[in-house]
Amino acid sequence: MTTDADADAAAGDAVSGETYTASVIGGTGFTGGELLRLLSGHPNFEVVQATSRSADNMTVGRSHPNLRGLDLRFSDPDDLESVDVLFSATPHGVSMGQIDAYFEAADTVVDLSADFRLPEADAYDEWYDGHESPEYLERAEYALPELNRENLAGADLIAGGGCNATATILGLKPLVDAGVLDPETDQVVVDVKVGSSEGGAGGGAASSHPERSGVVRPYAPTSHRHEAEIEAYLGLSVSFTVHAVEMVRGASATCHVFPGDPVSKGDLWGAYRDAYADERFMRIVSGGGGVYRYPEPKAVAGTNYGEVGFELDPGNRRVVVFSAIDNMMKGSAGQAVHAANIALDLPEDAGLEFEGLHPVGSP
Amino acid sequence: MTTDADADAAAGDAVSGETYTASVIGGTGFTGGELLRLLSGHPNFEVVQATSRSADNMTVGRSHPNLRGLDLRFSDPDDLESVDVLFSATPHGVSMGQIDAYFEAADTVVDLSADFRLPEADAYDEWYDGHESPEYLERAEYALPELNRENLAGADLIAGGGCNATATILGLKPLVDAGVLDPETDQVVVDVKVGSSEGGAGGGAASSHPERSGVVRPYAPTSHRHEAEIEAYLGLSVSFTVHAVEMVRGASATCHVFPGDPVSKGDLWGAYRDAYADERFMRIVSGGGGVYRYPEPKAVAGTNYGEVGFELDPGNRRVVVFSAIDNMMKGSAGQAVHAANIALDLPEDAGLEFEGLHPVGSP
Amino acid sequence: MTTDADADAAAGDAVSGETYTASVIGGTGFTGGELLRLLSGHPNFEVVQATSRSADNMTVGRSHPNLRGLDLRFSDPDDLESVDVLFSATPHGVSMGQIDAYFEAADTVVDLSADFRLPEADAYDEWYDGHESPEYLERAEYALPELNRENLAGADLIAGGGCNATATILGLKPLVDAGVLDPETDQVVVDVKVGSSEGGAGGGAASSHPERSGVVRPYAPTSHRHEAEIEAYLGLSVSFTVHAVEMVRGASATCHVFPGDPVSKGDLWGAYRDAYADERFMRIVSGGGGVYRYPEPKAVAGTNYGEVGFELDPGNRRVVVFSAIDNMMKGSAGQAVHAANIALDLPEDAGLEFEGLHPVGSP
Amino acid sequence: MTTDADADAAAGDAVSGETYTASVIGGTGFTGGELLRLLSGHPNFEVVQATSRSADNMTVGRSHPNLRGLDLRFSDPDDLESVDVLFSATPHGVSMGQIDAYFEAADTVVDLSADFRLPEADAYDEWYDGHESPEYLERAEYALPELNRENLAGADLIAGGGCNATATILGLKPLVDAGVLDPETDQVVVDVKVGSSEGGAGGGAASSHPERSGVVRPYAPTSHRHEAEIEAYLGLSVSFTVHAVEMVRGASATCHVFPGDPVSKGDLWGAYRDAYADERFMRIVSGGGGVYRYPEPKAVAGTNYGEVGFELDPGNRRVVVFSAIDNMMKGSAGQAVHAANIALDLPEDAGLEFEGLHPVGSP
Repeated sequence: MTTDADADAAAGDAVSGETYTASVIGGTGFTGGELLRLLSGHPNFEVVQATSRSADNMTVGRSHPNLRGLDLRFSDPDDLESVDVLFSATPHGVSMGQIDAYFEAADTVVDLSADFRLPEADAYDEWYDGHESPEYLERAEYALPELNRENLAGADLIAGGGCNATATILGLKPLVDAGVLDPETDQVVVDVKVGSSEGGAGGGAASSHPERSGVVRPYAPTSHRHEAEIEAYLGLSVSFTVHAVEMVRGASATCHVFPGDPVSKGDLWGAYRDAYADERFMRIVSGGGGVYRYPEPKAVAGTNYGEVGFELDPGNRRVVVFSAIDNMMKGSAGQAVHAANIALDLPEDAGLEFEGLHPVGSP
Repeated sequence: MTTDADADAAAGDAVSGETYTASVIGGTGFTGGELLRLLSGHPNFEVVQATSRSADNMTVGRSHPNLRGLDLRFSDPDDLESVDVLFSATPHGVSMGQIDAYFEAADTVVDLSADFRLPEADAYDEWYDGHESPEYLERAEYALPELNRENLAGADLIAGGGCNATATILGLKPLVDAGVLDPETDQVVVDVKVGSSEGGAGGGAASSHPERSGVVRPYAPTSHRHEAEIEAYLGLSVSFTVHAVEMVRGASATCHVFPGDPVSKGDLWGAYRDAYADERFMRIVSGGGGVYRYPEPKAVAGTNYGEVGFELDPGNRRVVVFSAIDNMMKGSAGQAVHAANIALDLPEDAGLEFEGLHPVGSP
Repeated sequence: MTTDADADAAAGDAVSGETYTASVIGGTGFTGGELLRLLSGHPNFEVVQATSRSADNMTVGRSHPNLRGLDLRFSDPDDLESVDVLFSATPHGVSMGQIDAYFEAADTVVDLSADFRLPEADAYDEWYDGHESPEYLERAEYALPELNRENLAGADLIAGGGCNATATILGLKPLVDAGVLDPETDQVVVDVKVGSSEGGAGGGAASSHPERSGVVRPYAPTSHRHEAEIEAYLGLSVSFTVHAVEMVRGASATCHVFPGDPVSKGDLWGAYRDAYADERFMRIVSGGGGVYRYPEPKAVAGTNYGEVGFELDPGNRRVVVFSAIDNMMKGSAGQAVHAANIALDLPEDAGLEFEGLHPVGSP
Repeated sequence: MTTDADADAAAGDAVSGETYTASVIGGTGFTGGELLRLLSGHPNFEVVQATSRSADNMTVGRSHPNLRGLDLRFSDPDDLESVDVLFSATPHGVSMGQIDAYFEAADTVVDLSADFRLPEADAYDEWYDGHESPEYLERAEYALPELNRENLAGADLIAGGGCNATATILGLKPLVDAGVLDPETDQVVVDVKVGSSEGGAGGGAASSHPERSGVVRPYAPTSHRHEAEIEAYLGLSVSFTVHAVEMVRGASATCHVFPGDPVSKGDLWGAYRDAYADERFMRIVSGGGGVYRYPEPKAVAGTNYGEVGFELDPGNRRVVVFSAIDNMMKGSAGQAVHAANIALDLPEDAGLEFEGLHPVGSP
């Protein structure tokens, strides 16, 4: 394990804890770029490798203009350098085949794909195309700290959650924990709105600017794979529908919950305060004055914050829960770095201090 | 009643039926402008007056740049000219006080506000600020042809529906009529996404461009007034939530329906085909190939079309219904002209032939 | 030549003049779709064929959701049906090779590509990849009516102009005609802003929604091919730069003109009124009150209108000219139909009556 | 002067140099909010007061949702607390009347309005409404470090530049310094595109979302006040036109320069490298591969970076220069903090380390 606190201090970074070498596999993608942004500005990480088959030997800044100042070129994913922490941002199905190689190269592996985020192999048979390395599933820890913090300390295989699942779990978990929502019997409808970055850097006709602009497009009316995570981690079977809307980054989940027993506004405040009052990256935004009275992707764009809020609909005893995140941050790269910070016993917000912008356009 | 078919023919318009003089009250607003656009291009209407207190004597084109070619100036709403048909596009609460004056000036009144769209006075006590002229409520006919065509023929007081209610009713009515959805017992969650034109031309901090751009903003988490229409015309109490999203015109309703009895994809196709196969302005868009596989506001922007589509979620026996309209057209001015065409026995699509654009940006 | 005025009359269309059969070659592209929209709503055209290699036998509505109601399927471009008028919307370089086949199938050919829009073959050597059928260049008439109306009557080969050239020529021609601008000696800088539809339906990384959204992107800093048209038809060598901005359809040209001799506001009004006072599709928008005081793409989106306006900068004797069009309409398909109307002695605005929308979002 | 390096260190911030107390006058506006964001995250500043008449006693987070975590309420601007540095973000004309009070409260004043950015009083007579406190003009230092770094050290009155002037000066200064551009004789046309935040938090009909969305709107065809700064600091009289385009934050200046003598690509690279190679916040982006080959507001949104690039147009001996900044950062609040860092001998990038996001939507 390398330690160059001196160099770091010289560079003017705050140093608490050691410095770890890191690599990013799949660096040209959107979440790969977000990882490179976060890690290159992180006081405890030194990025020594970013891989890309298609952009081998090209500068990182060519793919990610915000990183033009970064002196780093993509290298061949078949030549992995030895690092403390390897972050993989490859498409689903890749890292399950590379996991042995990953662990040969690194002590800790953080995977942002879906390959290790479900606990049971048969869930992969049902929702994906099966699993090549099921023996790793038990070893993997789900990256969402608000759900799984206690198990992340010292974890060596961390599996990032899905962005839509993350938004939903953050919104509903407090109600489950408080007993307001009974996963066995109560009905929940989750209506998600997401930005175009969720489709990744590839694109295609549907994601070309003229076709994708200004849509309210049902892209997963039913059977979205993220249902599997919600089932696995909340024990909850939700009615789940995802829409593409006009933004690039952001995911907003509106959860319509029908508790079996009557619930009060006070019960809801209690549930969310118990869950998130001490959470560094969670905000409860519910009512009050001004323009921004509920969670909005705009308000958290570029940050690792999750915002949750709620209203009570007396008429039909419905609880409406709003949850907003940046799909590439709290929903992917930010969550991964947050989890790595915990696993390595670093300050939870190291490298994640950006507070976001106001005003911003379409995030 | 004036008739100048000759002049019209000379102008190169198709003439079937007579020509009616029309006035638009509240002409500077968005729906007022839309009415002026539709009526000035309508082969059977001649716009003789458009009123505005704030823009008295200014050209219509100053408020509505698309109407720069129209030789018409706003006049004082206190000096109503005698016309065949008066269209009122004033804010809620105005026309209920002006209705006697309206009928002194016109044989037929088409009101786009909420003032006459509910059948019972007590509904106004519950959802609005009461009603000044309840004696007109029974006389008023709800403008939505797909719901109320038979009663619109010869009607002299037509009440335009609310845009969110219209999108919802168009999406759910076929299921109610087919018995797939039992209004008494089945649960329905409606999650609506709307554009900024729904806020009207006024504006305010929340609708300023920097604050409003790119939002996914819950602006009516519960208790939206349009629930009253859905209750009144479908006998259905829905769990209703409205979000503002990044577009100017458009309303999209996603209806999550939980039928008591099992339903098949075939049942759904049957229900929607029975309801809309012969409707001039309804399109069933459900699955199939290409980019636009479900209803989208973009695909109907500027037109009087409504698009509906659906999917079946076997897992939890849910039917997901998508309904998309242009809130200012099928959801307001277009619906009003459509209803007036029926009331006056004109071709249903007279003045409403625009087919929409592709591609378009944020509608 | 077919004539079915009866059928048309029965269909409720206004009929002045005969009806012509038409085909659209390259129907899946954006301008092809726009042609199909315009021609299918045109009282004097009957679309009998739309071709596409990639979408052979698929419905037109699958590519263009606004045309879902159109009962037409794409067919093989190698089997051209005999028609009165063939509209070709293929990529540059295709129609110059197909032109003989086009004339075997049709009496009149309207080409929307660049293949016949320059009068001299050597201009193709300089700006394009040379020309396969230079013998047709003299026969071709430039489609812009405001520039070339007198030569369009009876023309059998019509070449549509480039959208950026069209916006520029419409803005500057009145100054050249009035002698305010001397093409030989005066300097002109043209700074153009265009929407993503100009890139066509293909796409690619640069036009994917996440990368293309919200840009102010110099995509042709110098040497844009449309300079050749401006040179050819105005005798003017302009300093030309094109930027991509956040919209889908629209082109706006800001022309900074430096007349050799002093000019007054009155001179400018005179020049533009002389040029456009009687033009059906041109609007002079310059100053005045309200929000829309100058030309804007938004105000003409979906229409065949061109808007021009100007200001005088006394400080440095500069005339600033603004010109706005819809690149797919006045800048392509609308211009083509307008020219065809003239060639066939039909009403100039037949099929082009749409007045545009207000408000609209990003057009 | 307060010093609490210990507290800061405990908070995990990097500390080089002392900590200064700061206040922000006019804290509800966009630039005021940006100052609060930057200063609250700045290792060397402690915000002790933010004033607002309209929002007195309300939380800062109510106006700026990204600052919800900040424990600070607006206070009355008539009760200024004693601080080391006072930042004023009031509308033009306010601080010139408050300047004495400002200096009673603070050792150093940084003003973001236009009130002290011009060196000569008569320039205020010509471009603004005159000046109340001309005696301060000589004392004021223009905040743009790339133009005026040497005079900022130890300055106690710093005047932030205008965003459009900043973009233009950053683009043209290297050409003036290198002698490529002769301010006396060479002609320069500057065509600027800006976002809606430039209009401030106020709003009005023209900036309401439905009217402002998707525009390419000439809002200052001629005689923009920022010309005065370009004249004052580059000795250059430019032909200047500003357009509003669809984004919230960002300013892009395209400068069309016509050098009297021939210039080569190498001359241009030399001029820009000489000027900016050692500048912390300037990037030269010109050609090369990938999607982002020239400066773009998107690529610098939220950051203090300025991007400049150029192309040579041999045909008419034109140099096209592109310059992009975030109007609220490099064009206002970021520039102000950068200048304050220099004045107080702090690291230039303290509090300004954010590298920006990719991808982002409309910034």
